[in-house]
Parts: sequence; structure tokens; C-alpha cells
Amino acid sequence: MKHLEQEILKAEVLIEAIPYIRKFAGNVVVVKYGGSAMIDEKLRKSVVQDIAMMKYIGLNPVVVHGGGKEITEMLQKMGKQTEFLDGLRVTDKETAKIAEMVLSGSIGKDLVEELQAVGIPSVGISGKDGHTLLASKKLDAKGRDLGFVGKIDKVDTTLLNTLLGNGFVPVLSPVGVDEHSQTYNINADYAASAVAGALSAQKLIFLTDVEGILKDKNDPSTILRFLTENQAMDYIADGTINGGMIPKVQCCLDALEKGVKSVHVLDGRVTHAILLEIFTTRGIGTMVTREEK
Amino acid sequence: MKHLEQEILKAEVLIEAIPYIRKFAGNVVVVKYGGSAMIDEKLRKSVVQDIAMMKYIGLNPVVVHGGGKEITEMLQKMGKQTEFLDGLRVTDKETAKIAEMVLSGSIGKDLVEELQAVGIPSVGISGKDGHTLLASKKLDAKGRDLGFVGKIDKVDTTLLNTLLGNGFVPVLSPVGVDEHSQTYNINADYAASAVAGALSAQKLIFLTDVEGILKDKNDPSTILRFLTENQAMDYIADGTINGGMIPKVQCCLDALEKGVKSVHVLDGRVTHAILLEIFTTRGIGTMVTREEK
Amino acid sequence: MKHLEQEILKAEVLIEAIPYIRKFAGNVVVVKYGGSAMIDEKLRKSVVQDIAMMKYIGLNPVVVHGGGKEITEMLQKMGKQTEFLDGLRVTDKETAKIAEMVLSGSIGKDLVEELQAVGIPSVGISGKDGHTLLASKKLDAKGRDLGFVGKIDKVDTTLLNTLLGNGFVPVLSPVGVDEHSQTYNINADYAASAVAGALSAQKLIFLTDVEGILKDKNDPSTILRFLTENQAMDYIADGTINGGMIPKVQCCLDALEKGVKSVHVLDGRVTHAILLEIFTTRGIGTMVTREEK
Amino acid sequence: MKHLEQEILKAEVLIEAIPYIRKFAGNVVVVKYGGSAMIDEKLRKSVVQDIAMMKYIGLNPVVVHGGGKEITEMLQKMGKQTEFLDGLRVTDKETAKIAEMVLSGSIGKDLVEELQAVGIPSVGISGKDGHTLLASKKLDAKGRDLGFVGKIDKVDTTLLNTLLGNGFVPVLSPVGVDEHSQTYNINADYAASAVAGALSAQKLIFLTDVEGILKDKNDPSTILRFLTENQAMDYIADGTINGGMIPKVQCCLDALEKGVKSVHVLDGRVTHAILLEIFTTRGIGTMVTREEK
Amino acid sequence: MKHLEQEILKAEVLIEAIPYIRKFAGNVVVVKYGGSAMIDEKLRKSVVQDIAMMKYIGLNPVVVHGGGKEITEMLQKMGKQTEFLDGLRVTDKETAKIAEMVLSGSIGKDLVEELQAVGIPSVGISGKDGHTLLASKKLDAKGRDLGFVGKIDKVDTTLLNTLLGNGFVPVLSPVGVDEHSQTYNINADYAASAVAGALSAQKLIFLTDVEGILKDKNDPSTILRFLTENQAMDYIADGTINGGMIPKVQCCLDALEKGVKSVHVLDGRVTHAILLEIFTTRGIGTMVTREEK
Amino acid sequence: MKHLEQEILKAEVLIEAIPYIRKFAGNVVVVKYGGSAMIDEKLRKSVVQDIAMMKYIGLNPVVVHGGGKEITEMLQKMGKQTEFLDGLRVTDKETAKIAEMVLSGSIGKDLVEELQAVGIPSVGISGKDGHTLLASKKLDAKGRDLGFVGKIDKVDTTLLNTLLGNGFVPVLSPVGVDEHSQTYNINADYAASAVAGALSAQKLIFLTDVEGILKDKNDPSTILRFLTENQAMDYIADGTINGGMIPKVQCCLDALEKGVKSVHVLDGRVTHAILLEIFTTRGIGTMVTREEK
Repeated sequence: MKHLEQEILKAEVLIEAIPYIRKFAGNVVVVKYGGSAMIDEKLRKSVVQDIAMMKYIGLNPVVVHGGGKEITEMLQKMGKQTEFLDGLRVTDKETAKIAEMVLSGSIGKDLVEELQAVGIPSVGISGKDGHTLLASKKLDAKGRDLGFVGKIDKVDTTLLNTLLGNGFVPVLSPVGVDEHSQTYNINADYAASAVAGALSAQKLIFLTDVEGILKDKNDPSTILRFLTENQAMDYIADGTINGGMIPKVQCCLDALEKGVKSVHVLDGRVTHAILLEIFTTRGIGTMVTREEK
Repeated sequence: MKHLEQEILKAEVLIEAIPYIRKFAGNVVVVKYGGSAMIDEKLRKSVVQDIAMMKYIGLNPVVVHGGGKEITEMLQKMGKQTEFLDGLRVTDKETAKIAEMVLSGSIGKDLVEELQAVGIPSVGISGKDGHTLLASKKLDAKGRDLGFVGKIDKVDTTLLNTLLGNGFVPVLSPVGVDEHSQTYNINADYAASAVAGALSAQKLIFLTDVEGILKDKNDPSTILRFLTENQAMDYIADGTINGGMIPKVQCCLDALEKGVKSVHVLDGRVTHAILLEIFTTRGIGTMVTREEK
Repeated sequence: MKHLEQEILKAEVLIEAIPYIRKFAGNVVVVKYGGSAMIDEKLRKSVVQDIAMMKYIGLNPVVVHGGGKEITEMLQKMGKQTEFLDGLRVTDKETAKIAEMVLSGSIGKDLVEELQAVGIPSVGISGKDGHTLLASKKLDAKGRDLGFVGKIDKVDTTLLNTLLGNGFVPVLSPVGVDEHSQTYNINADYAASAVAGALSAQKLIFLTDVEGILKDKNDPSTILRFLTENQAMDYIADGTINGGMIPKVQCCLDALEKGVKSVHVLDGRVTHAILLEIFTTRGIGTMVTREEK
Repeated sequence: MKHLEQEILKAEVLIEAIPYIRKFAGNVVVVKYGGSAMIDEKLRKSVVQDIAMMKYIGLNPVVVHGGGKEITEMLQKMGKQTEFLDGLRVTDKETAKIAEMVLSGSIGKDLVEELQAVGIPSVGISGKDGHTLLASKKLDAKGRDLGFVGKIDKVDTTLLNTLLGNGFVPVLSPVGVDEHSQTYNINADYAASAVAGALSAQKLIFLTDVEGILKDKNDPSTILRFLTENQAMDYIADGTINGGMIPKVQCCLDALEKGVKSVHVLDGRVTHAILLEIFTTRGIGTMVTREEK
Repeated sequence: MKHLEQEILKAEVLIEAIPYIRKFAGNVVVVKYGGSAMIDEKLRKSVVQDIAMMKYIGLNPVVVHGGGKEITEMLQKMGKQTEFLDGLRVTDKETAKIAEMVLSGSIGKDLVEELQAVGIPSVGISGKDGHTLLASKKLDAKGRDLGFVGKIDKVDTTLLNTLLGNGFVPVLSPVGVDEHSQTYNINADYAASAVAGALSAQKLIFLTDVEGILKDKNDPSTILRFLTENQAMDYIADGTINGGMIPKVQCCLDALEKGVKSVHVLDGRVTHAILLEIFTTRGIGTMVTREEK
Repeated sequence: MKHLEQEILKAEVLIEAIPYIRKFAGNVVVVKYGGSAMIDEKLRKSVVQDIAMMKYIGLNPVVVHGGGKEITEMLQKMGKQTEFLDGLRVTDKETAKIAEMVLSGSIGKDLVEELQAVGIPSVGISGKDGHTLLASKKLDAKGRDLGFVGKIDKVDTTLLNTLLGNGFVPVLSPVGVDEHSQTYNINADYAASAVAGALSAQKLIFLTDVEGILKDKNDPSTILRFLTENQAMDYIADGTINGGMIPKVQCCLDALEKGVKSVHVLDGRVTHAILLEIFTTRGIGTMVTREEK
């Protein structure tokens, strides 16, 4: 009977999920996928399972992936020299094409296959397909031209909605294109934020390699569990949020601005981080919303 | 971190359910609801949760309920005398009407409300609504007339399909009607079997007050976990299955005959019996199928 | 040839109906069914035929029925004592449940069967099904608590529209429910008015046991054939409309307020009262509209 | 009260129609319209009303009209000489074009307008529109060429079904065309029969200037109320049916052959002949079916 | 190889059409068809081909035809005397009916047949069908009654949209009707303009017997290639546009007012005038738009 | 006027295309794209224009591309050594992944962009997306294992049909996957043939670097314009068709077998080869059909 009791406990876990399923059914959830969660085999598997579960439960996940590390490796293999400017890579035409090839032709397709392998129909697209991401040149913070690094001017949701409406999970590589057919590399955080906004997503989830948004980046215990738009802006203003965390928080605020209901900065190093965030009361990162709830 | 690990274990339970969700999505599951599971408050709640979970996960549950005990109580309250024949109640016109009233007007509506309370749109119907159950008089085993006890001649699935197709869970009271507008009481097991057959259900689940189908009815350890059609008929022939279990097994066979994929005789006294049967590998009753799997 | 001429006269009656059919095709007509028309066998049959004719001709009838008399009989049969307060029955929990059972399990199902018997697909629902009638406690005119007598806070038309859209005539028992799953008895006139408003019905028809709205309730010749909203309010103010007629007129005004085009207080003791009102120029009761026509 | 009773009688006429409405709802009824019913102003009005009533009640009427008399008048007005062969008009190219013009441009449009005037959306088409009637030359009984008199080789129902499916009553002029764009006059009886067959009509109604099919054409009392296919062939064989009645009976048999359920030869000189046939038990002409009912 | 090069040149003509196809796909184009283009056999064939090409390429053409010449011929053949008032024909009831017959029964059907012969499903309708053109009497410029000459009060687009939506090309005869079923002749230019406006057409094309709108009507070299609404009004005001050109320009302005994007006055004496206007950069007439492009 | 005449000639080219447009509207045409037509800038542009024209005219093109040359270049750039067996490359895991990356991430995306640039919505997919191409290991003619070179076991058309049904042109990279998520390179000719068969395409077009199927491969004048299945098999049997032409002809026969109506081996070095083949009578390659036409 011991075993039976354990099984009943399992059933109760399923039952616990009911209110969350009710709340989110049919909603679009955009997941920015990158960092450790993309490299560690076990974490990778847990992310794929989480996306599958979302899909089965009636949510509509959209995946936007990064891939800086793989691009760097490929450039090295091909003996391609790269110039750096204040630590930022200058992306010439060839580099942009190689990056596109790695993102659309390797990382995206691998992720598609992992989803297909657990029975989730999925399709790897880039911002070129259906001209989903129309982009133009983005200068760096100091106004300098770093080559073909793009900012998104328009998200055409026709293809994304066609795929979602027919049951496919879109896996989007952050590659954009302009009206002269020029290819641009786009920061995956920005792409995820723009796509979530254009689709009026319920949630935008960033899988990161930090615990969440911390007041003291060296002390995980200073994590901010909930953050409103105004609080975030105040923390940026007073320097509490600083350095590399600023662009990520900015992406959160942009997405909220465009109508996304909540943005989550999760610790992608925790297995099943997405499911825990969506289906349990225990927060495992930082949730940013327009107003306090 | 202890807590986090526990949460992750919970997420893994959800993940475990994926293959079952994939397998059954969109299928109709007919649940014959009765016995202890209908009386005990805690079990009742667990059944409602299980039905809700099925619905959220993408299955289409249909509930057929009994209610002998409540009918007897009402007849007593109303001082209505009942004649018995070999222990079977003779159902005169008035008894049939009172039974209908209790089933359709009380038991069915209570169940609807419990489902609605957990957010599941549901509708209580009887076999009269949309002439779902067309019936005629059923004589007893000895060919005697016990009054307005009916057998089902035809299931009209139009209303059931309208409700299922629009997201409602039908809760069906086992009341039939003939072409002269005569009301018949129908055994809920038979009704569930006929409805499951007419809807080509994936599963028909009987919630009973026994462990399952037992070789020795006094020894729960003799439970038969899997049973094929042929085996069942052999066991009836050789007397292994006997007495009150015969009609239930007959219902199982009838349903398989009409195209139901599997019939489950579950122990309704176990909490979350339905979920355990559907979403885990551990059987908690007897599964009957046409052929060995 | 005599016979042929008679037949031709019949054809001309059908032809006369054309302009009315044109005018009302596709419209929802809510019929509050009660009083003599529900008790007298011949009248009952004529009402069922009228509803069938409306349906065949392309209107969408919805029936809301009462049943005070049957509830009283059942309470007596069950030996249930009832307290009265100024002549109004105090409805305790048990009384509310018995009333529900009689309304949903007996009166409603009988009416469904009579409609089905003339070929009209119909479904008996209560306000619990699909949470169609969300209610809360209604105090009496003096602010006293009479128990579980409800007023309607919201009509959820999802189930009604699903049934109408799939060709079924909904037969609604005036039973409501609150968010704590508490059952309430609701006055059928109020329920009909609320439902007609929520469905933006073309017509709301009250089948009553009076000729219509009379200036002198003892003199049928003082019947008011047409009445505007303003006139009705004036008559209430100057005491012309008084006593038991006031709540009924109030229901008329409420329905008009919510968008019902016209409300008809008909004499349910006249056979085919509904058809006569809808398909002929001769009024047989009182029609109330927002403005003069 | 006298008046009220008369009104109630009217309501009962409507009620009487219910079983017929149930039986025929949604069915296509092809009416061959011609003879006195097309000339006499009162009869004309009654036919239009009957078609309107059919439409309102849920049937799908299709009208095929003749017009020999009007064509003859127009030929005379235009001073066009006509050659005759055994009493049959030889139709040269010009005659065929004049006939088309009168049928499609005058008779058809007048009928459309009369239907529109009673609120029935209708459209006058000829067999050229959507190439509804593909025809070829028809020789006379003796194998002689009478010019551009056509027989129907194919009915393309696309346009007819588009109009029916969008709520329009098609009014078809019996003009056909071949693949070389040659115009043919077609006998309206044949056209009606071919169209009824192609649409698998429930009924094909011929409005004629006789009482029905008579055993002795001079004695109306010898009318055959019901006739099976076999009986009709026997009567032709033994000469009971003879002369001008033979082609009409042949049209009936052709239509039955192609799947029309029943063909009715009605006396178009009786007002509301169509309604009487469809909505009452009294036959007013001859009904021909494949088998006895 | 010479031949192959010629073929490749042909392919390039198709390729050149791509930007125009992209621009106009799915748009409604109303063609007023009349004058030489309707009489000359070769031009007639080229118009039919142009309409077919529009249809195949994804545009939705609607044809409105005239027929003054044929009506005059028919009146003469029938010996019908006509009264004239300042050169305008007085249209009595009989004349109106004869005109209708010629338009709907002869000219329209011939055009339908020519379209059908090249594989384009088409249907000839008049303003009576589906009460597409509701009209009333139109007095002449001096306020005199010229009989049953109509102006359009309302265009009911239901039938036109039904035909367009089901792939048919509507061929509309300019015949209107009022609520008393009176037939009116309508100027085809006005009818085309009203229909184009009601359908929010992309283009309205007038096939005329002049080069376009000329500053000096005797000098084709003074053709105005583009004209804005304001310029047109200025030219009328200063007398540049005068005489018979004024009503045509007025039709252009009316259509623009109702939302037509551009109106084209083309020289119907040029073969393939419509295709040249739509698919090439070379203008072959005058284009009138609201604002300069 | 000279210019106008030239324009009219252009219009006539469009008109000439009408019968072909009629014949093929709505059909799927699969184009195997490779060879010179993919490398030469001018030819590349002409292919893109031809595909665009097909799309505008109402056909549904699907592009399957090759890319052997680019894969070889990439392998060289990455310093990847390749083993050869009888001249065939042995494809190890890494080679398969690099090939996939080049095909899906570079060649496919470039082609998508070129189509998008002329306004054709298109999407680059590989056989992994939606598990469109399920593959398994293909041994060489001698039964030796050449690594991860695949043969197609199943084409899942769900994604292709979703894209086609929503107006996108699918651009398919010939990469397959098995149930263990192993990637396979697939010969593009085989992939095109399998996809054409699975979609029951009207036409399968191979763009090659030869004139067509030649009897003497050194003499272009020996080209076979039309070839039936049987003739092709005879030519293979008697050695007329030999060497490298055999696998291509085999692909043609396979596609015919699976229901493709005609297969075309075209000379991709001719500009607008596809349009010439589809829209003119002049053949510019070899057409293979099941039976003589």
C-alpha cells in the first residue's frame, strides 16, 4: 500500500496544477533560451520537457534562442579573424552570414529535433522566413557602427501565427533582414522581447545564468522576487540594477510596454525552472509586471 | 534548497504524465460514477478533480451517474410502498417519475455544480434531453415484467456531441424514454456502456466498491490486472467470474463490442483512482480489452 | 368542390402568416410558461404546438417555466413544514433543494419530453448548468431574509447560445447558484426577464391567468392593448396598476431596459395564445414597448 | 369571442402544417411554372405566395418557367415569319434568339420582381449563366431537324447551388447552349425534369391546365391520384395515357429515374395548388413515385 | 535558337506583369462596357480576353454594359414610336420593358456566353435580381419627366458579393426597380459608378469611343493623362471640360467620392485597352484620382 | 503609334497564357533547384521570377534545393578531411551536420530572402521541421555503408500543407532524420521526387545542366521531347539511357508511380526555363508521363 500512497501523492501534484492550467490556457509564452540551460545536457532535456508540458497543457510556447558561444567556435574553426571594439565584436558581412548559418542551420534545427523527439511538432525559422523580423543597423551605445548588428523595426507575426494556429512550436533564430535583403545579427534578448510584444504574449521568460535580478549581484539572497515597472526604473536610476543586468531589465520593460503581461528572469541552471515558475506558487527567479499584483 | 528539490520532484511528476497526455489527447472517456466514490465527501472531491484534470489535459470526459441509494431514501420520505420480486424492485409509473426526479433534479445537478465550482463548464442532462437515450421495457432474467425498467435501444449522440464540441462536460442521468413518452429507469452501468459505445470512447471507467475483477471475490490478492474479451468469457463459463460481477463484466464486453478501446473496473474507494489509471503505469483495478496488448 | 374551397382557405391562413414570418425570422423569443397553461392538458398541448411552430418557422424559442404549485405538493408529500412570513414562504436549504429537484427533475423534463414528442429537439437545463444563472440572496420588500430566494446577478449565455446555435430549444428551470455553490430559488418571471435581456430577445412573452394588464382588474374590458414604458410607469405611479400586477409590469420594464424589443402579457387560458400574438394582427393581451409604434 | 374563436381556428391551420414542415425542411422543390397559372393575375399571385411560403418554411424552391405564348406574340410584333412542320414550329437562329430574349429578359425578370416584392431574394438566370444547361440539337419524333430546339446533355449545378446556398430562389429560363456557343430553346417541362434530377430534388411540381393525369381525358373524375413508375408505363403501353399527356408523363419518369422522390402533376388553375399539395393531406392532382407508399 | 530567344522575351512580358499583379490581387474592378468595343467583333474579343486575364490573375471584374443602339433597333423592328424631348427619348412603360428585355435577355446573355466560352464562369443579372439596383424616377436637367428613366437610390451588394465570392463574374444590365415593382432604365455610366462605389472597387474603367479626357475635344494630343478630383472640378468650372464629357467626368467624381481608388476613361477602340492600363506603365487614356500620386 | 502596337503585342502574350493558367490553377508544382541555375546570378534571378509568377498565377510552387558545391567549399574551409569510396563521399556524423548547416542555414535562407524580396512569402524548412522527411540509412549500389546518407521512408506533409494553405512557398533543404534523431543527407533529386509524390503534385520540374534526356549524350539534337514510362524503361534496358542519367530518370519514374502527373527535365541554363515550359507550347527539355498524351 506504500506504493499506492506514493502514486496518490503524484496524482495530487497533477491536481495542484489545475488552477495554473485554468489561468494560462491558450496563452502565448515566449521563452528566450540560452546560457547553461542550452549547453548542459540534463538542463537541455528539462527545458525541452517543460516546453512540451506547456504545449500539452494548452499553452502556446514560442522559443527564441541565442548562440554566441557556437558562433565563436565556428568562426575559429573557419579561421575567420574578428576585430573587437571595446570588447564588442565587429560583425562584417561574412561574420553575419556565418552567424546566421550556425543559428538557423544548426542550433535551431537541433532544438526542433529535440522537441519533435518528444512528440511536439515544431518548426525552426529565422527572421527571414516570412520576413518575420525586419531589421536595420543598430549602433553601439557610443554611436559607433559595429557592422551588421541589427535592431528590430517590425515583427510580422503572420508566419508565427500560422504555425501556432496549426499546432507547431516556432523555434526562432535571431536573424533579421532589411528591405535590401541585408542580413543582421540580433541580440536574442531583444528578439524575444520584440516577438513577445508583437504576439501580446502572456509571459516572456528569460532563461539566464543568474538567480534572478539581484540587489547585490554577489549575494543571491538579495534576489528581488517581484518587481514593478516603476521599481525597476527606480533601481536603474539609483544604481541598484547596474552593469550587464541593465539591458536585460530594459528588455523586460520594453516587453511590458508592448502588452506582455509578465516577464520572468529565471535561473536556467535549475532543472524544470519554467514549469516551477508557471505551475507552482514558489517563485524561482524575478517576475516583472507593470503594476503590483 | 530542500524545498526547491521537492518542487523539482513535483515538476517531474508533471513531466511523467506527458506520454499519457500525448496518447489520449482528444479522446472521449466515459466514467460511470457511483458507489462509495459518490458518497464519501473526500472521494467525491477527488473524482471531481480527476475529471477536471482530464478535461484540462485535453480529454473529453462524460459522466454517467447512478443513485439507487438516494432514490430509496426519497421513496421512504414520500411514504411510497415498493413491491419486491426476488429482491428486485418493481418500478411502477410513480416510482419511475420519482427516480427520474432524484437523478436529474438532484444528484446530476449537484455533480454539475461541483464541476462548475472547479471551473469546468458542465451540463446535467437525462436521456430525455435531445432524446439521447431511447429505451423500451426490459424484462428480468426470468422474463418477468418489473415495470418501467428500461433497456437502451438507441443512443442519439447529437446533444452529447454538441456539448462536448462546445467544451462542456455532459453529466448524464440514466433515464430513458420511449416513443410514447414513457419514462424508464435504466441501470447506470448499462447506460455508461451504451453511451461509451455510441461515442466510440477511448476508455470506459467503472468506479466500483471492489478492488477490480477478482478470481476469488473474498481475496483481493486474486485481482486480474488485464483481461481480454476471450479470457473474460472463459472465466464466466468456468464460474471464476460469477454472481453480481457477471452483469458488470457483461457491460465491459458490450462496450468493447461497440468499439470502446478499453474498459476499466476501478476501485472507487482509492483517491484519484481515475488519474492513477490514466496517467501512471501502475494499474489499480482491472483493464479489459479485446486483445492482449 | 366545397372541400377544396375550405382547403384553399387554409392555404390562405398560411399565406397570411408570411409577413410575420419575414419580420421575426431568426429572433429569440423567451416564453415564461406557468399558470393554467401549464396545468390544463389541452392548453399545455397548444403551448407545445405553438413553440414547435415558432421553431419550424425560424424563430428561436427559449422556455422559462415556473412550478410553485408542484413544489408545494411535493413539500406536503414529504411532510416538510414551512414557515410563512406575511404570506411569503421562508425557503430553508432543504426547501430550496426540494424545489430544485421538482423544477429541474420533473417539470422541466416533462416539458422537454412534450417538445421532443412533436419533433423539437430540446434540453432541460437549470441555472446551475454552465452557471447560466449566477444569483445571490434577495431580501423581501421589507428587507427581511426569506432564506434561499435569489435574485439574478449575471446570466451567462454561453450554454443557451450553444443550444440555440445547434437547433435545441432550451427549457430553463429558475434555479440559481452563487460562487459558494449555494442553490437559490428564483421567481420564474424574473428569470425569464433576465434571460430575455441577456439574449437581446425580440420578444418576451408571459403566459398568465389574466386577460392582460387591466385598468380595472375586475373588468376585462379595461384591458390595455399597448403600453409604453412611460405609460406603464405613470399607471404604477397613479395606482392604476397595483397589487400583484406591479412585479409583473416591473419585469416587463426591466426586460425592455436590457434591450428586449417588446414584452407581451398574454392570457394563457386561450388556446394558441402565442401563435395568435405572433402571427395575427389581433392582440390577445397587452404589449409593452419602449416607445409607441 | 366569435372573432377570437376564428383566430384560434387559424392558428390550428398553422399547427396542422407542422408535420409537413418537419418532413420537407431543407429539401429542394422544383416548380415548372406555366399555363393559366402564369397568365391569370390572381393565380399568378397565389403561385408567388406559395413559393414564398415554401421558402419561409425552410424548403428550397427552384422555378423553371415556360413562355410559348409570349414568344409567339413577340414574333408576331416583330413580323417574323415562322415555318411549321406537322404543327411544330421550326426554330431558326433568329427565332431562338428572340425566344431567349423574351424568356430571360422579360418573363423571368417579371417573376423575379414578383418574388422580390414579397421579400424573397431571387435571381433570374438562363441555362447560359454558369453554363447551367449544356444542350445539343434535338430532332423531332420523326428524326427531323426543327432548328435550334435543344435537348439537355448536362446540368451544371454550381450556380444553382451557389444561389440556393446563399438564400436566393433561382428562376430559370429554359435556354441552353452548346460548346460552340449556339443558343437552343428547350421545352420547359424537360428543363424542369433535368434540373430536378441534377439537384436530387425532393419534389418536382408541374403546374398544368388539367386536373392531373386522367384515365379518360374528357372526364375529370377519372383522375389518377397516385401512380407508380410501373403503373405509368403500363398505362402508356395500353393506351390509357396517350396523346399530349405522354411527354409530360415521360418527364415525370425521367425525373424519378434521376432520383427525384416524387413528381406532382397539379391543376394550376386552383389557387394555392402548391401549398395544398405540400401542406395538406388532400391531393389536388396526380402524384407519381417510384414505388407504392 | 532564334525561336527560343523570342520565347524568352515572351516570358519576360509575363515577368513584367508581376508588380501589377501583386498590387491589384483580390481587388474589384468595375468595367463599364459599351461603344465600339461592344460592336466591333475583334475589339469585343479583346475585351473578353482582358476580363478573363483579370480574373485568372486574381482580380474580381464586374461588367456593367450599355446597349442604346440595340434598344433603338428593337424599337424600330417592333414599330414602336418614340417621342423625343430636346433630343432625349421619352421612355414610356412599354419602352422601358422593351429596353429591359434587350439588355437583360440579349446583350447581357451574349456577353455571359462569350466569357463562358473562354472558361470564365459568369452570370447575367439585372438590377431586379436580388433587388441589386433600387431606383426612382430621374428628371432631366430641366426638371422634366422623361418617363421611366431612373436614378439609383441604393445598391444592394448581396447578390454581387455572392457571385464574386463564388468565383462568378457578374454581368449587370442597367435596369432598376422601385418598391412598387416599376422598371426603370438607367444610364450605364451611372450604374457602373454606383456599383463601383458600393463595392469599394479598386478601379472603375469606362470603355469609351474617345482617347480619354481631352482639353480640346478635336485634338487628341491634348489628352489629360492624370487628373485629380480638384483639377477635374476646375476644368469643368473654366469650361475646359464641357458638353457630353461633363456627365462622364461627373460619374468619375461620384465614384471617387464613394471610395473607388481610381477611375479610368479609356479608348475602347484600342485592342486590349484594359490590360494595357492595368499591367503596363503606359497610360492609354485618362486616370482620375482623389489626390495626385 | 509604334509604341502602342508593341504594348498591344505584350498584352497578347499575357492573353496567350490564359489556357495554361486555366489548366494548372491551384496545382502543386515541385521544383528541384540546383546546378548552374543556382550559381549564375542572372539565371538565379530568372528562377526566382518564374517561381513568383507561378505563385501569382495561382499555382502552388514548392522548392527543393541542392547544394553539393557549397558543402564541399565549407568542408574545405573548415579543414575537414573527407574519405572517398569509388568517388562517393563517405559522410560521417560531423560531415552530415556541416552539410545540414550549409543547406538549412545558408542556401535555403538565401533563396527564401530572394523570394521575399519579390514579394513572395516563403519559409525555409528542412526535413527535420515537423518531421517532414523521415529517413534511414541508404547503402550504395554495392551495398556499402557510406555513412549518414539517407533514403526517405516517409514524407509527413502536414507542415508543407500548412505553409501552402496559408500562402507561403516552402523552400525545403534535403535533410532527413530518423526516430533516433540522427541527421541524414539526402540527394535533392530523390527528396524532390518523394515530396512531389506525397503532395500528388501536378508537375515535378528538375532544373539541370543538360538540354534534357538525350539519346546520345554528346549530341543535343538527339533530345527526347516526350517520353512515357514504358519508353523510359525500354531506353534504360537497351542502354540508350545510361550512366549518370539513369538515377535522374529513375526519380522521374518514382514520382510518376506515386501520382505526379508529369515530370520535366529542363535545361536550367536557359533563362525562364520554367515559365517557358509551363506557359508556352514550345518544350525546352524532356517531359515524362505515364502514358502518351
